[in-house]
Amino acid sequence: MQNLFFKNNGPFKISDIFNILNLNNDDIDSDQSITDIKDLYSSNINEITFFHSKKYKDIAKNTKASFCITTENLKKELNKNCKPIIVSNVLVSTALVTEKFYPDSINDYFDESVIEIQDTEFKDKIKFGRNVLIGKNVKFGKNCIIGHNTIIEKNVSIGNNSSIGSNCIIRNSFIKDNVKILDNCVIGKHGFGFFPNDNKNLRYPHIGIVIIEDNCEIGCGSTIDRGSMSNTIIGKNSFLDNQIHVAHNVKIGKNSIIAGQVGIAGSSIIGNNVRIGGQVGISGHLKIGNNVEIAGGSGVIKDVPDNSKIMGYPSKNIREFLKENKWYIKLQ
Amino acid sequence: MQNLFFKNNGPFKISDIFNILNLNNDDIDSDQSITDIKDLYSSNINEITFFHSKKYKDIAKNTKASFCITTENLKKELNKNCKPIIVSNVLVSTALVTEKFYPDSINDYFDESVIEIQDTEFKDKIKFGRNVLIGKNVKFGKNCIIGHNTIIEKNVSIGNNSSIGSNCIIRNSFIKDNVKILDNCVIGKHGFGFFPNDNKNLRYPHIGIVIIEDNCEIGCGSTIDRGSMSNTIIGKNSFLDNQIHVAHNVKIGKNSIIAGQVGIAGSSIIGNNVRIGGQVGISGHLKIGNNVEIAGGSGVIKDVPDNSKIMGYPSKNIREFLKENKWYIKLQ
Amino acid sequence: MQNLFFKNNGPFKISDIFNILNLNNDDIDSDQSITDIKDLYSSNINEITFFHSKKYKDIAKNTKASFCITTENLKKELNKNCKPIIVSNVLVSTALVTEKFYPDSINDYFDESVIEIQDTEFKDKIKFGRNVLIGKNVKFGKNCIIGHNTIIEKNVSIGNNSSIGSNCIIRNSFIKDNVKILDNCVIGKHGFGFFPNDNKNLRYPHIGIVIIEDNCEIGCGSTIDRGSMSNTIIGKNSFLDNQIHVAHNVKIGKNSIIAGQVGIAGSSIIGNNVRIGGQVGISGHLKIGNNVEIAGGSGVIKDVPDNSKIMGYPSKNIREFLKENKWYIKLQ
Repeated sequence: MQNLFFKNNGPFKISDIFNILNLNNDDIDSDQSITDIKDLYSSNINEITFFHSKKYKDIAKNTKASFCITTENLKKELNKNCKPIIVSNVLVSTALVTEKFYPDSINDYFDESVIEIQDTEFKDKIKFGRNVLIGKNVKFGKNCIIGHNTIIEKNVSIGNNSSIGSNCIIRNSFIKDNVKILDNCVIGKHGFGFFPNDNKNLRYPHIGIVIIEDNCEIGCGSTIDRGSMSNTIIGKNSFLDNQIHVAHNVKIGKNSIIAGQVGIAGSSIIGNNVRIGGQVGISGHLKIGNNVEIAGGSGVIKDVPDNSKIMGYPSKNIREFLKENKWYIKLQ
Repeated sequence: MQNLFFKNNGPFKISDIFNILNLNNDDIDSDQSITDIKDLYSSNINEITFFHSKKYKDIAKNTKASFCITTENLKKELNKNCKPIIVSNVLVSTALVTEKFYPDSINDYFDESVIEIQDTEFKDKIKFGRNVLIGKNVKFGKNCIIGHNTIIEKNVSIGNNSSIGSNCIIRNSFIKDNVKILDNCVIGKHGFGFFPNDNKNLRYPHIGIVIIEDNCEIGCGSTIDRGSMSNTIIGKNSFLDNQIHVAHNVKIGKNSIIAGQVGIAGSSIIGNNVRIGGQVGISGHLKIGNNVEIAGGSGVIKDVPDNSKIMGYPSKNIREFLKENKWYIKLQ
Repeated sequence: MQNLFFKNNGPFKISDIFNILNLNNDDIDSDQSITDIKDLYSSNINEITFFHSKKYKDIAKNTKASFCITTENLKKELNKNCKPIIVSNVLVSTALVTEKFYPDSINDYFDESVIEIQDTEFKDKIKFGRNVLIGKNVKFGKNCIIGHNTIIEKNVSIGNNSSIGSNCIIRNSFIKDNVKILDNCVIGKHGFGFFPNDNKNLRYPHIGIVIIEDNCEIGCGSTIDRGSMSNTIIGKNSFLDNQIHVAHNVKIGKNSIIAGQVGIAGSSIIGNNVRIGGQVGISGHLKIGNNVEIAGGSGVIKDVPDNSKIMGYPSKNIREFLKENKWYIKLQ
């Protein structure tokens, strides 16, 4: 699928790509044209991909990419038709190549294409407040409602019967049907991804988007960051309370309920029918199963199997935690 | 007292109410007119109420309501003059009836009645910034100050010498005298109350309001949700720091001090002279006594008696917690 | 250095200062002119300072101030050339005197000097969105970018190549070069400092500012409060994620990385190269050393030496904490 939100400045010759990685390109056909950079699973012929952890070796074996940024150690796991590009730090090199293809994905400067909604085709189609700004190529379904001072940036798509509150900023997002986003939310900014570097950190490009499925509700003052290489997804009929932070690449399942001030760190995957109490923190890259209940205030630092009820920091089986902590003890 | 913020679409015939609950109404006088729905304590003759927990049996005995949504088990506790309406889920049925009376209380779509403040009678009476929007029937006391881009929705009342920062949204609220609300706050939106339902949750109506008493201060980026059947109240001279979340129906006493990023879940009651450290979480439906001190970062999951000093998650007597956790241990 | 942000209403006669403190001034030269109030270290001849804790006795010995608000107990530690002013509560008295010099520093009412950016000299010099408001005497470097609805209040200075997102409010701040402040931030408001007082708390003046050094990034929805007597400082190349709260007088070192929803209480000092996980809380007046790593969700309540890796609430050595908490235990 073409990326609607970030302009692909490619194709580039593979020799240009070797150049930005400071690699010797004597052994390659320098004129070969590379059209895009994608993850191992989505990439295709004449595209470049990356492979940085053994965890993905089964996908690496079947990638259709023509080139793969990887390490000496991992290259043997790669599909024979995919040429390895050996680097010392796969993610830094991937960032540099991604930035070459998608330079706009590094910074989230304000959308200069926006105009006042009364000057657009939506003037008579949707209900809107004062000072609403709409970017180029935005799409709305039927019966949408947009509050005061809200900014919908270019290419965002909002489904039928959805409402956005006042003072919101929505960018790089697909909002589906019957979604309610309440006031003061920021949806679709780049995630907190960069390579630490003395004096000047190196920002990681974010070419993923935010997808909010049907019937969701997002509380006031929440922030949902877009993905880096994949998307951030809020599943159908999931409800999020106020002041929640959902980091890049997180996927939340269907019918989940997340109370106020919860934070979910990057790339974690939350199942269906999950209930998360207020102020819970979930570390990055975790898998929380279906039907899990997490008591308010818990800190989750490892994967959680389906149907678990957990509590504590680090979170454990809820009965165990309460027993251990003699929570019945007198307070005075 | 009449509800100023949500239009009561009643009266309705009791037979209409039975209809929306899918109940057989053979035994009742279908033409009896019902004027309002209220809680057990406030409701009066020709009004309907609800009774879902034994906790409220003393109030149920004395309710003046003509009808009460309740269960087979609880009906015997009810005042003899009040006719029980037996349902399987009291709260779901109450939500349906409340929505019939107050359909506007379900959604918080932006207030279409707002106009720019320079086009109102307040033009020369209060000090205001750019792009301030004021709804119908808003009231201001003397010497008020309203910052840039702030929206005061219909029927809100603000007392003497009170100031609202920039980028705030205030709805369904009574703000009294000498109150300071700082930038980016959202006050008076509906709470996070709904009945989970696969594919499409059922929203609970919120017909309560937010009351902020004299001399309070509310920090930047805070959210205070209005009540469902009762009000959310911040007591006189209580100060809240930045990024605090106060959920629906919470009542905070006088002279309390609440540090940054605290979250108070629905329906909890906080006493007078309470001091709450940063990032504390308080579960729903709790009672925190007077003069309680809660150390920063604590998670409170049960009632706290007056004069307690507590800490931890779950929180305990502070000395006990620190001893148990050998907090004097070396960090390196 | 002259305070650019708060007008000094002095000089005042020392007798006037004695008067607002309700002190007898028989023994002093009532006509002596006092030009300013500063901390023990910065104050000079003909200025007044304050000394409230033995911790500062070495600085007190060398202060150049002509007068010092202090206690009977502490006065003996003071430089002989500095005359003690004995009071019962040093901080309350200091607040009263500071308010006399800097009455504007008590409240953060919106800046009435702002005008639309297209009516300023910056019209053709920087890139800006809709509805941007700029106060008197604001300074911009080259290549700055300011998002929609953002307010830059009077005297703020922003360096080269810096960008401010949409819906931000920046006041009383120096923002240096290559800084990125993302959407919905409030930077430079007064801190949560006051003296509790039944029925009406007494606000503490905040005459410090916020300084954000080169190459920093501040995430969406964050709040950074200005200092009371000293400044709040974010060191070079430090990156803060979304929804972070930095309280008054905090100093963060260089190259530090702070994940989402962290809260740092007043006057704490964070070293260089510190990594702080999501939702960490750090109590006030602490010193966190260089190269410290704090696991997400931790609550830090005492000083942390250089190079420590800590976790927990209260936080401890990370290995110790995990062992004690049997975190490897099964969740189901």
